[in-house]
Amino acid sequence: MQGTKIMFKKGAKPRNPILIVGLPGIGNVGSLVGEHLKTELKAAKIATIYSSHFPHQVVMLKSGGIRLVSNRIYHWKNASKDAKACDLLILVGDFQALSSEGQYELNEKIVEFVKKMGVKTIYTVGGYSTTNQYIKTPRVFAVTTDKSKIPKLKEVGVVFGEASGMIWGSAGLLLAFAKKHKLSGTCLMGETGMLDVDAHAAKAVLEMLVKHLGIKVNLANMEKISHETEKAIKAMEEAMKKEQQGPSHENFTYIR
Amino acid sequence: MQGTKIMFKKGAKPRNPILIVGLPGIGNVGSLVGEHLKTELKAAKIATIYSSHFPHQVVMLKSGGIRLVSNRIYHWKNASKDAKACDLLILVGDFQALSSEGQYELNEKIVEFVKKMGVKTIYTVGGYSTTNQYIKTPRVFAVTTDKSKIPKLKEVGVVFGEASGMIWGSAGLLLAFAKKHKLSGTCLMGETGMLDVDAHAAKAVLEMLVKHLGIKVNLANMEKISHETEKAIKAMEEAMKKEQQGPSHENFTYIR
Amino acid sequence: MQGTKIMFKKGAKPRNPILIVGLPGIGNVGSLVGEHLKTELKAAKIATIYSSHFPHQVVMLKSGGIRLVSNRIYHWKNASKDAKACDLLILVGDFQALSSEGQYELNEKIVEFVKKMGVKTIYTVGGYSTTNQYIKTPRVFAVTTDKSKIPKLKEVGVVFGEASGMIWGSAGLLLAFAKKHKLSGTCLMGETGMLDVDAHAAKAVLEMLVKHLGIKVNLANMEKISHETEKAIKAMEEAMKKEQQGPSHENFTYIR
Amino acid sequence: MQGTKIMFKKGAKPRNPILIVGLPGIGNVGSLVGEHLKTELKAAKIATIYSSHFPHQVVMLKSGGIRLVSNRIYHWKNASKDAKACDLLILVGDFQALSSEGQYELNEKIVEFVKKMGVKTIYTVGGYSTTNQYIKTPRVFAVTTDKSKIPKLKEVGVVFGEASGMIWGSAGLLLAFAKKHKLSGTCLMGETGMLDVDAHAAKAVLEMLVKHLGIKVNLANMEKISHETEKAIKAMEEAMKKEQQGPSHENFTYIR
Repeated sequence: MQGTKIMFKKGAKPRNPILIVGLPGIGNVGSLVGEHLKTELKAAKIATIYSSHFPHQVVMLKSGGIRLVSNRIYHWKNASKDAKACDLLILVGDFQALSSEGQYELNEKIVEFVKKMGVKTIYTVGGYSTTNQYIKTPRVFAVTTDKSKIPKLKEVGVVFGEASGMIWGSAGLLLAFAKKHKLSGTCLMGETGMLDVDAHAAKAVLEMLVKHLGIKVNLANMEKISHETEKAIKAMEEAMKKEQQGPSHENFTYIR
Repeated sequence: MQGTKIMFKKGAKPRNPILIVGLPGIGNVGSLVGEHLKTELKAAKIATIYSSHFPHQVVMLKSGGIRLVSNRIYHWKNASKDAKACDLLILVGDFQALSSEGQYELNEKIVEFVKKMGVKTIYTVGGYSTTNQYIKTPRVFAVTTDKSKIPKLKEVGVVFGEASGMIWGSAGLLLAFAKKHKLSGTCLMGETGMLDVDAHAAKAVLEMLVKHLGIKVNLANMEKISHETEKAIKAMEEAMKKEQQGPSHENFTYIR
Repeated sequence: MQGTKIMFKKGAKPRNPILIVGLPGIGNVGSLVGEHLKTELKAAKIATIYSSHFPHQVVMLKSGGIRLVSNRIYHWKNASKDAKACDLLILVGDFQALSSEGQYELNEKIVEFVKKMGVKTIYTVGGYSTTNQYIKTPRVFAVTTDKSKIPKLKEVGVVFGEASGMIWGSAGLLLAFAKKHKLSGTCLMGETGMLDVDAHAAKAVLEMLVKHLGIKVNLANMEKISHETEKAIKAMEEAMKKEQQGPSHENFTYIR
Repeated sequence: MQGTKIMFKKGAKPRNPILIVGLPGIGNVGSLVGEHLKTELKAAKIATIYSSHFPHQVVMLKSGGIRLVSNRIYHWKNASKDAKACDLLILVGDFQALSSEGQYELNEKIVEFVKKMGVKTIYTVGGYSTTNQYIKTPRVFAVTTDKSKIPKLKEVGVVFGEASGMIWGSAGLLLAFAKKHKLSGTCLMGETGMLDVDAHAAKAVLEMLVKHLGIKVNLANMEKISHETEKAIKAMEEAMKKEQQGPSHENFTYIR
C-alpha cells in the first residue's frame, strides 16, 4: 500500500453537503469540535481514508478487535424539508499525515473526493496560539478563500484580519486545495493557550459554527469537558506556583 | 533497488500453513518467540525479504561472508498424517521498515505473498508495556480480526479486551492487511517492563501459542534465557539502589 | 499533489531576461535582496511555484484570505529601447524545499522553466559566514559556471577565489543545473556574521549587483533596514556584555 | 532531477577492471585510501555519479567555479603488457546517500554500471571501530562474498572471521549487490579508534591492498599524513589529561 486510499459507502448521496473538518492539531481544538459534532448529530460513517503517510499503527479496540489508523468522514442528514437545506460531512481522524509530501497528497485527495460528493463549502477547525496563558474567553479567528463568507461569520462573532502567520496541516492545505478546485474554504481557529486539549477554545468555535450553519447541536457535553479543563488548569497552576517557590537547584533532576 | 523484493524457493508447497510473525519490537518479545520457534522446530528457510525500507546494512558472518539485512520466512513441515494438520511459516528478521511509508508497503507485500502460499491465519507476536517494573508473571494480551479465535485463545490463558492503545509496526499492520485481504489475523502481546530483551514475556507467549496450536516445542532454552534475564535484572536493581543512595551531584557526569 | 507545479501567466514574453534568485538562507541575504529588487522595481508576478517539498503551510493574509506557501517569479520590464536591454525575472519565496530530493527536483524544474522563458543568465544570492562577529563592511564573494563573468564582476568589487566550502540549497543547485542546461550561473554571497537577518550583507550585494547589471534601484529602504540592524546589534552586544559579567551559575536556567 | 544519474566518458574501455571503493565513512578510512590511490596512480576520471540522494550542495572551487557534489570513478591503466593484467577503477566521492532508500538505489546502480564496464571484482574499503583508543598498529579485517579470495588476502595479512556486526553504506551494500549480480565483492576494514580521519588505518589497508593486487603505489604521502595524525593525537591526549585534572565543575560550560 502506497499513498492514500479512500474507501466509501456506495450509494451515499448527501444533499447540498458542507464539509466540516476537525482533525488533531493545536490544542486539539479541531478534533474536539469534529468528534463532538459527529457524536451529537449521530452522523453515520460514509468514508474511511487510509494513507501510508499516517503512522504505522493500529488501534486496539475494547471488543478485542483492531482498526488501522485513518481519517473518517461522517454524514449527517439534515431533516429539514427545505430543498436548500444542507447536510453535513464531518471529517475526523486519529492523525494527520506525517510528512509534508504526505500532507499535500492526502489533502488534495480529500478535496477531490468531497467535490465529487457534491461539497461546495469547507470549514476547517483549528487552534490559534496567542499566548502561553490559559484563556478564559477565547476569541474565534478566521481566514477564508471566499469573501462572501466574511459578513455572515462576523455576525456570529468570528474575527477576521487579526490572525497572522501560518496554518499548518489539513486545516490550512484543505483551504489551499479548495481554492485550486473552486470550492469555498474557511478555517475557524479557537484562541488557545498552551494546552494539549483545550475544550474552551473548541466550545467557542462550536457555538459560532452551529449558529452560522443554523443547526442545533447539544453543547452540554462540551461544556462539561470545558469545566473539567478549567479545574485541571487551576490545579496545575497551583502545583506550578509551589514548584516555583521550591529551591531552584531541585530543577537539576529534570535535566533529561 | 527500490521497495520490497521477496525471493522464494520455487516449488515450496506448505500444507495448510499458518504464519507466525516474530520481529524486533518492544522487549524484543517478537524476535525471541520467532527465533526460538524457528530453531527448535528446525524450520527451513523458504523466502527472503529485502527492502530499501530496511537500514542500509550488511551483516558480517563468522564465516567471513556477509548477508544483506532482511526478513526471512522459515517453513516447518508438520509430520502429522492428518490432512487437516497445519504447517507453520515463521517470519523473523533483523529489522522492521524504518519509515511509515515503508511499513505500509512492506507489510501489505508480506500479506499478499503469504496468501499466495496458502496462508489463511496469521499470528503476530509483540510486547505490551504495562509498567516500568520488571514483571515476574507476565500476562499475554491479544487482539484479533477474527472473533472465532477468541474463545480458543482464552482457553489457553490469553486475555482479550484489556490491552488498549496502539500497536506499532508489523505486529499491527499485518493484522490490518490480513483484514483487508480476508485473512484471520491475531496479535499476541507478552506483558513486559522496560527491558530491552524480555525472555519472560516471550516465554509466556510461547507457552500459550504452542498450546493453542497444539504443537510441541522444547521451551528449555527459552527458560534458560529467561532465568538469565531474571539474574541480570536483579543485578541491575542492586546497582540502581546503590546509585540512588550515592551523592546526587554525581549524576552530573551523565549529562550528555 | 506530488512534486512541483509551476503556474504561469500565459503570454508573458520577457525580453532577454536575466534571473535573479533571492530565497531564504544564511543571514536571509537572498530574501532581502530579492524582495527589495521586486518591490523597488515594481516587478509584476508572472509565475507561482508550488511544491509538496515545501512545508505544509498556508500564509494568513491581512485581508482575511490565505495563500499556499510558494516560490514566485516577478517580471521587471526594462524601459530601455535598446534591443539588447535585459528584463529581469526575480525569484523570491517563503521557503526552500525541505529535503535533498526536493531540492534537486525543484531546482532543476526552475532552470528548465526559466530556460523556456528565454533566460540565459542566472544570478543567485546568498550569505557567506566568515565569522561569528558582526561585519561592518561586508565583502561580496562569488562563484560562477561562466568564466566570462569574472572580470566584469571583479570591476564592481566582487571577490572571486576566496570563498570555499559548500553552498546549500537553491543558491548552489540552480548553478549546477544552469551548468547542465548550458546557462550561465553565478552566485553572489554577502559576507555575514551570525545574524538571522543581515541587511548589511544584503546591501553590499545589491550595490554591486545593480552596478553590474547597469540598472537603477533605490537603495534607501535597504539602508534604513541596515541602520536598524546596526542599532539592534549594538543593543544585543551591550546585553551580552552584561550577561557575561553576571554570575555564571545563572546560566543554568537556560539549560533546556 | 530524481534518483541517480551516471555520466560517463564514451569509449572508455578498461582492461579486466577491478573496482576499488573509497568513500567517506568511519575514520574516513575509505576516502583516504581511495583519494590516495587515485592521486598516486594519476588515474583519469571516466564517470561522475550525481544523485538526489546526496546532500543539496555544490562545492566552491579555488578557480571560482563550482561543481555539484558527486561520486566519481577514476581509471588507472595498467601499463603491463600481460593480457591478464588488471586496470583499476577507483570510486571516490564527497558523500554517501543520505537515506536508506537512497543507499539501496545508488549502490545497485553502481554495481550495474561497473558490471557493464567489465568489472568482475570489487574491493570496498572502510573503518572498523574496535575501541575508543588510538590504535598504533591497526589490523585489517575483511569479509567477502567470494571465498576464493580468502587465502590470498590472508597471505598479505588480512584477518577474516574476527570482525562482527554491521557494515553501513556503500562499503557493505556494494558487496550485497555484487553478490546479487554474480560479482566478487570484498570489504577491507582498517581497525580504527575514535578518530575523524585515521590515516594509520588507511595506511594499513593500502599496504595490504597494493600487495594483494600486485601493483606499486608510493605510500610516502600517506605515511606523512599518518605521522601528522600521530602528532595531533598526542597533543590531544596531553590536552585531555590536563582537562581531566582541572576542576570538574568547569565542565558545565560544555553543557549545550
